[in-house]
Amino acid sequence: MEQIYKGKTKDVYRDSNGDIVLFFKDDMTGKDGVFDPGENQVGLTVKGSGLAGLKMTTYFFELLNDLDIPTHFISSNFDKNEMRVREVTTFGDGLEVICRYVATGSYYRRYGKYIEDGTVLENPIVEFTLKDDERQDPVASKETLNALDLLHADEYDTIAALTVRICDVVKEKLTEKGLDLYDIKLEFGRDHETNEILLIDEISGGNMRVFKGEENIHPLEIGTYLL
Amino acid sequence: MEQIYKGKTKDVYRDSNGDIVLFFKDDMTGKDGVFDPGENQVGLTVKGSGLAGLKMTTYFFELLNDLDIPTHFISSNFDKNEMRVREVTTFGDGLEVICRYVATGSYYRRYGKYIEDGTVLENPIVEFTLKDDERQDPVASKETLNALDLLHADEYDTIAALTVRICDVVKEKLTEKGLDLYDIKLEFGRDHETNEILLIDEISGGNMRVFKGEENIHPLEIGTYLL
Repeated sequence: MEQIYKGKTKDVYRDSNGDIVLFFKDDMTGKDGVFDPGENQVGLTVKGSGLAGLKMTTYFFELLNDLDIPTHFISSNFDKNEMRVREVTTFGDGLEVICRYVATGSYYRRYGKYIEDGTVLENPIVEFTLKDDERQDPVASKETLNALDLLHADEYDTIAALTVRICDVVKEKLTEKGLDLYDIKLEFGRDHETNEILLIDEISGGNMRVFKGEENIHPLEIGTYLL
Repeated sequence: MEQIYKGKTKDVYRDSNGDIVLFFKDDMTGKDGVFDPGENQVGLTVKGSGLAGLKMTTYFFELLNDLDIPTHFISSNFDKNEMRVREVTTFGDGLEVICRYVATGSYYRRYGKYIEDGTVLENPIVEFTLKDDERQDPVASKETLNALDLLHADEYDTIAALTVRICDVVKEKLTEKGLDLYDIKLEFGRDHETNEILLIDEISGGNMRVFKGEENIHPLEIGTYLL
């Protein structure tokens, strides 16, 4: 297989028949050995974390496909840490869409003048951020994403609505296990052939902040509750 | 008169009859002696800058009142550098609303991955920012301003629409004089008695970035073109 992209936590290959294959690595984002889903660098390597991410992603993508929510997922191979997916084009070098149920992390750092850390938000708040390490992944509005030629206004609305729908599913599954979803990060792309907007990348512990009561659940532990 | 607020470029007094009076000081925002409308500190003191700001503000507020755009303006006294205004309550400790016609300044610093400095925007872009020096005046979305209990969604829409209407008036007046408005910052408040949303503060060279061709026009010079 030909490697076509080397990411922080996943590498991307093209199979000899043209399929796209994601290889889930044992690297996690964070800083100084401490996991942080908001960090832009690999902070630690944990044996088995790639497979754990792949298993949780597979669980959620199969669930979403059953609900007719469009994802890039085709199939997974747990023996090889691989997920086979539909080919997509990203929006520019990639957008991350954050759905927040509780004000914390970078949201609290920005708006701490008016909100306490840990405040439950009455409605989920969706934020679009640009993947841009150099500029600390800036948040961008619908108007700005349009001005930057990254998203049309109707695509923004589609993605924002899909995000809440998807994250509500994840939240519900966690709630059933006594866990609270604080925030979660998704990625979307356009199907290479049909241009349909698809959920891409992964839904794993590394992309979400989850609590049980006062306790922040480690990303690798979330799967042990769910699967 | 009793001083009720000491600002960076203006002090606020309450007259013996209850009226609010703004005193325009000769201090300008900037850094190391260089003017910058986006700075949060007083960077220089220029004799006459207070009066220049008051004159331009008076010019625009009278123009806007004639167009039935609600402002807090009552009258000006150029001999005393004073403007008499309606009393307002601010949104929290204050919102600043930026209208951008050209991508530059902090907008370019955030989105420079996808846009060139100086790109003319097809539609004006409105951004709401919180007055919060400690957190570098973060941009906040409609949903966030609602979650922070600062603005209802309909108030956001009212202010966004007023902003474009007002800034288009300013832009047109500058265009008539051969000047290009790149961006401009407004403030709004609620009328203390009626709760009506009013344009407050000032419209002066210190709140806008203006070019003539390639040349950045100094804020104190803008008035010499207009008045």
